[in-house]
Amino acid sequence: MRFIGVDLGGTRIRAGTVDDDGRLLARSETLSDARRGPAAVLETLRRTITELAPSLDDIAGLGVACAGQIHAATGVVVQAPNLGWTNVPLAHELRHTVDLPVIVENDVRAAAWGEFIAGGGHAGDSLIAVFVGTGLGSGAVIDGRLWAGASNAAGEVGHTQVVPGGIACPCGARGCLERYVSGNGFQQRLREARTAGTDTALDARTGGDGASLTASMVYETANDGDAFARRVWDDAVHHLTVALANYVTVVNPRVLVLGGGVIETVPALFDTAAAGIPPLTTILAREVLRIERARLGAWSGVVGAALLARGSAR
Amino acid sequence: MRFIGVDLGGTRIRAGTVDDDGRLLARSETLSDARRGPAAVLETLRRTITELAPSLDDIAGLGVACAGQIHAATGVVVQAPNLGWTNVPLAHELRHTVDLPVIVENDVRAAAWGEFIAGGGHAGDSLIAVFVGTGLGSGAVIDGRLWAGASNAAGEVGHTQVVPGGIACPCGARGCLERYVSGNGFQQRLREARTAGTDTALDARTGGDGASLTASMVYETANDGDAFARRVWDDAVHHLTVALANYVTVVNPRVLVLGGGVIETVPALFDTAAAGIPPLTTILAREVLRIERARLGAWSGVVGAALLARGSAR
Repeated sequence: MRFIGVDLGGTRIRAGTVDDDGRLLARSETLSDARRGPAAVLETLRRTITELAPSLDDIAGLGVACAGQIHAATGVVVQAPNLGWTNVPLAHELRHTVDLPVIVENDVRAAAWGEFIAGGGHAGDSLIAVFVGTGLGSGAVIDGRLWAGASNAAGEVGHTQVVPGGIACPCGARGCLERYVSGNGFQQRLREARTAGTDTALDARTGGDGASLTASMVYETANDGDAFARRVWDDAVHHLTVALANYVTVVNPRVLVLGGGVIETVPALFDTAAAGIPPLTTILAREVLRIERARLGAWSGVVGAALLARGSAR
Repeated sequence: MRFIGVDLGGTRIRAGTVDDDGRLLARSETLSDARRGPAAVLETLRRTITELAPSLDDIAGLGVACAGQIHAATGVVVQAPNLGWTNVPLAHELRHTVDLPVIVENDVRAAAWGEFIAGGGHAGDSLIAVFVGTGLGSGAVIDGRLWAGASNAAGEVGHTQVVPGGIACPCGARGCLERYVSGNGFQQRLREARTAGTDTALDARTGGDGASLTASMVYETANDGDAFARRVWDDAVHHLTVALANYVTVVNPRVLVLGGGVIETVPALFDTAAAGIPPLTTILAREVLRIERARLGAWSGVVGAALLARGSAR
């Protein structure tokens, strides 16, 4: 039996056919071009699916991972800021289009499921997967099941408060973890440094274009002795370590998976967090905890969505 | 169908008969006198059960809530510092003694289950119950099931770090929430203030006996204008509010229950936390969140343990 998984993001649509064991058999990647609106994106999805599986005969289901707030029971995209969508009945539309069982899930949560089943998590009954990229999100598998929360909002560790009264977050609160550990967060700190007239080599490094700032630049510039970059990087390491240790302490998972662009491009961040988290959690929690790198890379959402379709098709 | 629930603590044994709906039909309370050793405590448990239900004919199961680290699958008390027990096969011993199906669970987790089924939590599929007393513990019901963690250590929010590098905790870490918000924590702070020569009206209030310090004394003395008591109380409120908001943010439960001796004796603490938590969590999480006082009081462990026995008897 095969399944199609799609990861629908603001920039890219990734898709693939996946077998029963979560192996990615074929894959494709295209631009979302979301400005065209939901109907045009749906047409791109239809074409992507048709190209992957011209005959749908051996495809048992379709799973879509979508960045944003998803109502998994109905497959409605409640809010997807990166796509500019509000209340799009995505599962309903796709069922009409492709004549397959369809599930839709939040992208990070689907990715956590992919890592649980096909990545390194399958040995246990519980896993937390944390992805640090443009933003910072997570999904949790508890007692062998993906936990979406009472209002599809579980796992928002990026919006736990690590600096009470700290940097203002677009979410409305202050001092959220994501402000200190994410591509967006690093850029915001550089903007604020400029406003404050703080001297930093990151100005030259980005050529004055703060939106080009990457995690690697912060890390390298910190290591070159730049005081501001050092502070930003040390804050990132410190807050990520404490916040994830606290997350592990309350959930007590078997596996903590770290992935996403920032983790992939700065290997030292994984090493430092993996060394720093265990001493800060409880003895019992750390005794069983494995901390691992995400294994499915950019395709965890595709694989996870396909495997969620497999689960609901059974 | 009726069940017997027992809450076995270092000081007291509470027990009761409970019906299918979690109603407490009869109750009894006796001293544990744990210094006598496991055999003597087991004999007290046997007598307590026999007095509650002279004939066991209409009793379908026995549930025991026990303070400490419990291996629920086997009913072994792995570690119970308050009782001085290590690796006591409590379920096994009790099955011999009373000829009933027996389950054993951690006391705070059993209490959370009691609040979920028979308290205010039953409307949803998820609940976090946090108990602030001598220590600070919690249990979580996720997707309708009690979650024990990968190593029976889930819910240890009392050992999340709220002040990195803060007050030393017996657990080996520093800055744990429990050091700032619990009877034990308040007493530790007073001891440290004495060592540091800090002037506080709590010295007179406790007659120089720091072990007699209660949460009410801290609260009242703070309101009388004492600077040290003010600091201790403000820290307690602040750290409890942020830590529980972060707990809610990652778990996204329908209900947050607050109970335990400190919450019961200082009503203002519940009110302040209940007002402070929602703005610090995500919009989606707060929209569905109900924050409630524990309804079963000191008997939540008894009711919860009995209801866990009901679940496993079915």
